[in-house]
This record gives sequence, C-alpha cells and structure tokens, in this order.
Amino acid sequence: MNGRLVVVGVGPGDPELMTLKAARIVAAAPVVAFFAKRGSPGNARTIAGALVRAEAEELRLDYPFTTELPREDSRYCEAIDRFYDDAAGALAGRLEAGQDVALLCEGDPFFYGSSMHIFARLGAAYPCEVVPGVSAMSGGWSRAHLPLVRGDTALAVLPGTLSAAALAARLAGGDAAVIMKVGRNLGTIRAALEGAGRLDGAVYVERGTMAGERILPLAAATEPAPYFSLVLVPARGGA
Amino acid sequence: MNGRLVVVGVGPGDPELMTLKAARIVAAAPVVAFFAKRGSPGNARTIAGALVRAEAEELRLDYPFTTELPREDSRYCEAIDRFYDDAAGALAGRLEAGQDVALLCEGDPFFYGSSMHIFARLGAAYPCEVVPGVSAMSGGWSRAHLPLVRGDTALAVLPGTLSAAALAARLAGGDAAVIMKVGRNLGTIRAALEGAGRLDGAVYVERGTMAGERILPLAAATEPAPYFSLVLVPARGGA
Repeated sequence: MNGRLVVVGVGPGDPELMTLKAARIVAAAPVVAFFAKRGSPGNARTIAGALVRAEAEELRLDYPFTTELPREDSRYCEAIDRFYDDAAGALAGRLEAGQDVALLCEGDPFFYGSSMHIFARLGAAYPCEVVPGVSAMSGGWSRAHLPLVRGDTALAVLPGTLSAAALAARLAGGDAAVIMKVGRNLGTIRAALEGAGRLDGAVYVERGTMAGERILPLAAATEPAPYFSLVLVPARGGA
Repeated sequence: MNGRLVVVGVGPGDPELMTLKAARIVAAAPVVAFFAKRGSPGNARTIAGALVRAEAEELRLDYPFTTELPREDSRYCEAIDRFYDDAAGALAGRLEAGQDVALLCEGDPFFYGSSMHIFARLGAAYPCEVVPGVSAMSGGWSRAHLPLVRGDTALAVLPGTLSAAALAARLAGGDAAVIMKVGRNLGTIRAALEGAGRLDGAVYVERGTMAGERILPLAAATEPAPYFSLVLVPARGGA
C-alpha cells in the first residue's frame, strides 16, 4: 500500500504559528521533505525545528540555483521543471515503499508555495492531504497592526515579480493591496506605488513574525530587500 | 496596570487548524470574548471548544441583528457602530481592571474579521497583540485541492457583497479570484462570473474544513448559501 503525502504549511516564521495539526503531522512523520536554498538550512525546516523526530528521514530538496539565470531564460524553465520532476521522483520513491511523507512549506502551501509543483506532480497519483498554514500576508499585517480589508474592501495580492505596467494597472483602482516577493523588485514596486499616488501609507514588512523582523514605511525601506518581505498598501481612502 | 488585549485568530473551522499560539493563549485567558449571532453558540467559540478554561469569564458579544435592515440603511450603520462601541466598552472594563482578554475570531482576524472593529477602538489605548490565523480562503483551497496562485499569478480577493458592476470589473482581467461572504449573494456572483466567461472552473466551498463541508462546481451550487462559503476562481488560462 502506498504511503500518504501530506503537504504541511508551517506558517510565516514564528514556530508557535504552526497549527496543532501541522505540529502533530510533523512530529509523527517517518519522512520529512523540505526545500532549501544551497547553503541555507531551509526556512520551512527551521520553523519545524525540534518537532521533527530524530529518527525521521530528512529529505532535503536543494533548489538548483536562485539568481544565476533570468527567469525569462528557457534554460531556467527547463532546469526548474527538471528539479521539480526529480524532487517529485524522490518523494514518490518513499510513497511507493509505503512510507508517509510530510512535505514542509513555509506559510500556506497553496499561497505561492513551491510545494504546489510537487502537488501538481503527485497529488492525483497518491493519497494526498494539504494542511493550510498561516500565510506570510496574515503574519505581516498582524505584526504591523495594519488591517487592510473589512466590509466591502477588495484586496489585490500581487507578486512583486510582475512588470511595472502590470503592477501599475492593478494599483490604479484603489483596492487594498499586498505585494509579495519583494526581494530584488523593491525599486519597481516603490515606483509603481509612487506612480499610483499610493506610496504614502504603504508599509514594508521584512521577515514578519521571525527573528530580525523589521516593519517600516515603504518610503524608508532600503535595498537589498530579502525575498521574505512584503508590502502592505491600504485601500485608497481607508479600509 | 491595564490588562492586555489579544485578538486571536482560531482558523477556518477545524479546531486542529488553530495555531499553537492561539491554543496557548485561549487556554490561559481569564476572560474570553467572542461574537455570536443570536441563537447561535458563535463560530469562533465553537472552534475554541474545550480549550477555554472552565473558570474563565466568557464574554459573549451578540450581534444586534443580521438581516432585519439593509446595510445601506443609515440605521444599520448607527446600530452596528453602537454595538461595537458597547462591545469595546465591555472589554475595556476588564482591561482597566487589569485582566487580560482574549478576543476570539474565526479565520484570520485582519481578513474581514469583526474583531477589527474592536481593535480599531482599543488597539491604541491598551497593550494589544494580534495573533494571525489560517484564513477561510486557505482552508478552502487546501480542501478543494485547488491551488490558485503561483509564480506571477495575481489574486483578487472580492467580498461577495460588492455590486454586480464592481465584481464584473475585477473579474474581467483574468487574475485568479476568491469571492468571500457568498451567502445571499450567490446569484449575483454566479451572474458576474458567467458574464466574464469564468463560470466554468469556479468552485464553491461551503463550511470548508468544518463538519458539513461541501465542495462542488459553482454551476451546481444552489441557494441558500451560508455566510461561511466562498468561491474559488482559477486564473484565466491556469495559474
């Protein structure tokens, strides 16, 4: 009988923001898989910390690269596809052997998480459960004490990797916005907000709920911004 | 010394989707406050269940009405403002007496939660912390096995209480969308999606992660929809 794949959101960074369910599943898992950048312990693995059993097999999935190739390059797409194929293959091996696998994911797995690429490859072939987590967005606005949406306010969630034009189009209307994946895109994001007349009031959150958290007006944020940063933009005229 | 207000997200419905932090705070709180509709035990209170100490004071905040007046009516706005004023006053009394208060909120407090109205009234006057929770949105797409956003996909979060025109404008572009607060607005929402050519693929989630959960194509959903339902709309052309 095949093992079960559980994609587990471990929340935005503070280990205490894991759910009771995530903690239970991580503590029981015979195989714990997680993504990590080369040379880093892996954010999701760090959050899970000592909950992982000493006797569990840890399956570290090293991203092949992060910045060497532009994302538009077809070699980037091929390499990243191959990486996810290989990672899914490694997990499938354990599942075929009847082992349950917990795949850790920071934040909420289906909110821009890498684990979606594994789910897309294995979710239909094996018994699979997705355990939602607290998103980085929720962690960010809670720590910033900045509620963005209530009543009839609409919210645009925008990857900072969008083009300046795509950002500008979605910021023109005045809905509240959260801009994810700030990283190297801080300058583009700031320019887009300035162009929409919405730089005032925008708040920058770096490593929300984690050690080293920084929360400041976006206008005061300086490069380089880490990938784990986001921008909160109140609705025009207030929530 | 004043007590501390902790606004605690208890997640989308499954009690095991409470965070470790929420569980710790609820179990320690001398005063536990929560909103409830008349005649209902209160969703947030139900989720917290037996974690609330037997000796805790439970402060039930009964919504004054739900459907008697249209939301456009000025009497509605006045009555709801007065209700939140009174509720905040009741909590402030405990805080002034030096008692810590945990205000329970389903989902994530700053994601369309009523507790925002209390935070707006008390957050600056008393020591206050906001504990984020797993949102109904995250619970919904996890249970539906339907990831909506990855890579450069933008997401529009839309209250179903928006007008047909406001919904249509935000659905025209093709970004992924989540429509909250379906309830009585199911017909309007379906018509807006149909008008945008996006009814196919839209998924209706009722009471996600709770007992009585129902997940089905939106085209097959029938009135009446409960307030705790949402609609997931994949991006045009896929995530």
